[in-house]
Amino acid sequence: MSNSAGFLIDGLQYANWSEKIFRQMRQGGVDAVHVTITYHENFRETVHVIEKWNRWFETYPDLIFQGFRAADIDLARETGRTAIFFGSQNPSCIEDDIGLVEVLHRLGLRFMQLTYNNQSLLATGCYESDDMGLTRMGREVVREMNRVGLVVDMSHSAERSTLEAIDHSTRPIAITHANPAFWHPALRNKSDTVLQALSESGGFLGLSLYPHHLKGKSDCSVQSFCDMVARTVDCMGPEQVGLGSDLCQDQPDSIVEWMRVGRWTKSIDYGEGSASAPGFPPMPDFFADNRDFGNIRAGLVAAGLDQTTIDGVMGNNWKRFFDLSFDPQ
Amino acid sequence: MSNSAGFLIDGLQYANWSEKIFRQMRQGGVDAVHVTITYHENFRETVHVIEKWNRWFETYPDLIFQGFRAADIDLARETGRTAIFFGSQNPSCIEDDIGLVEVLHRLGLRFMQLTYNNQSLLATGCYESDDMGLTRMGREVVREMNRVGLVVDMSHSAERSTLEAIDHSTRPIAITHANPAFWHPALRNKSDTVLQALSESGGFLGLSLYPHHLKGKSDCSVQSFCDMVARTVDCMGPEQVGLGSDLCQDQPDSIVEWMRVGRWTKSIDYGEGSASAPGFPPMPDFFADNRDFGNIRAGLVAAGLDQTTIDGVMGNNWKRFFDLSFDPQ
Repeated sequence: MSNSAGFLIDGLQYANWSEKIFRQMRQGGVDAVHVTITYHENFRETVHVIEKWNRWFETYPDLIFQGFRAADIDLARETGRTAIFFGSQNPSCIEDDIGLVEVLHRLGLRFMQLTYNNQSLLATGCYESDDMGLTRMGREVVREMNRVGLVVDMSHSAERSTLEAIDHSTRPIAITHANPAFWHPALRNKSDTVLQALSESGGFLGLSLYPHHLKGKSDCSVQSFCDMVARTVDCMGPEQVGLGSDLCQDQPDSIVEWMRVGRWTKSIDYGEGSASAPGFPPMPDFFADNRDFGNIRAGLVAAGLDQTTIDGVMGNNWKRFFDLSFDPQ
Repeated sequence: MSNSAGFLIDGLQYANWSEKIFRQMRQGGVDAVHVTITYHENFRETVHVIEKWNRWFETYPDLIFQGFRAADIDLARETGRTAIFFGSQNPSCIEDDIGLVEVLHRLGLRFMQLTYNNQSLLATGCYESDDMGLTRMGREVVREMNRVGLVVDMSHSAERSTLEAIDHSTRPIAITHANPAFWHPALRNKSDTVLQALSESGGFLGLSLYPHHLKGKSDCSVQSFCDMVARTVDCMGPEQVGLGSDLCQDQPDSIVEWMRVGRWTKSIDYGEGSASAPGFPPMPDFFADNRDFGNIRAGLVAAGLDQTTIDGVMGNNWKRFFDLSFDPQ
């Protein structure tokens, strides 16, 4: 993989980070990863996570470094390391303070979901029964995110909110980790209407390998996944699709509970799971960790995609999107 | 002043910032200012001040911008603006968390005093009766400041603590705003011992125009001040001396109370003032605001300093010090 001319970029991971995983990134030839650093954490708690990342960057400078702009992916390739770009899956990190958008961008935040599964101060999450679209603060924050170069991510948002974000944002938005509902109708997967609006606005779709988003879940085959990629490329165009694996490697089940429950309820919420399967689902055979991207590349060849499109999906498309998205307007 | 080849840099101001003051910086041809953004504020409160500065940078982009490295002073000169560098007068902003050193450096903090007037978690302030030197955390934090490129500032620290900081720091430290005690024996001014150790270690002294640090206080003449500059240059060498005006323009007296009292006492502490003169003292005639640096330059000529030394004191020396100090090691 690392000998390929194309970049290898993963549009979302949230692993239980360790030297082992950073070494696997290198073994897999991964040039850049957008990592989730925060869900329901407030600003100070999010900064504490950034401090942890700073320790990892200091401890493993030969494996990883923090990415701030697309050119850092070239640097990663030149120096044989993986560039780590920060993102948030919920706007808890900006609290009720629009000024924290610029502060967190300065600290390296490059993606922020306007919602996780619930209503936020900004928009409606995909698990609410009603969807009010962008809130008053949501419209202000999207404008500020556009200004500083923080990408609006609507992976976990409800449909109307997503369409309004696409419409209101003056820069292309991303859905970093989800699949088309036409392939697997999960609540988290996206309708044709959303995919079309995303595509027409220059937005980006990162295709997910999280079992709940896969047809056949943990039993999904690489060819089923790659045929879906080919169909999505037909629908979205060859340059606006990439991978957002949603790899949650080595996480204990207490983490998926935090992701789903945060501090908003005293009960258990199973999210995409269920009472009988409350934890992280097992990953599909063909994608267990960062060393397995070659299986997907091979599957894309078998699905009949041309080399340029395959290189695009594996990383070159994200590279171009990062290049357009992270600098101030 | 703006036609001069030399840079004009002020090593400390803490004004009640406004468009008026930013315009005066431009009228005075000031290329860069180290501004105090925080005293006793904790991390979150400090970030709120940074948010305020971000609004000023957004509102007055033709007058000011945030400086992160010495090269930004060249950019300031080329674009006719003033580069603003952040500093803290107390380590409250890092709380008890060494990880915040790198976070605040990323947000642009370039100077941090290890103490204000009192004992801190790091060292002893100049108003304590005993001086224990650097604390255990102080030694760790100085090492971390050295690593990331955050300058140790000992302007308000006690003597032993200052000498230990000079000794322990692997990079030159600064006293951004104080004068030699040989000229005016204020508690805040520095002994020959400190000046010699500072000089021998490559450290930097910013000379203060705050009346309590001046011989004759508010009645100090420009020639008395400039003769002191000449004598300090003889003692410290011509390249390690600059200005740190400590200009607190337009501040209400409630601010000097916050600086002195913070949240550490329920009583009033008068610091360098007194019960009969509790507020900010009036500035000397020759230096009221950023348009008055020319008076000092003229005074330095009259004091018999050569052109290179004068250009050094007015800003070229700070420029060189910034260049050595702000990048990670």
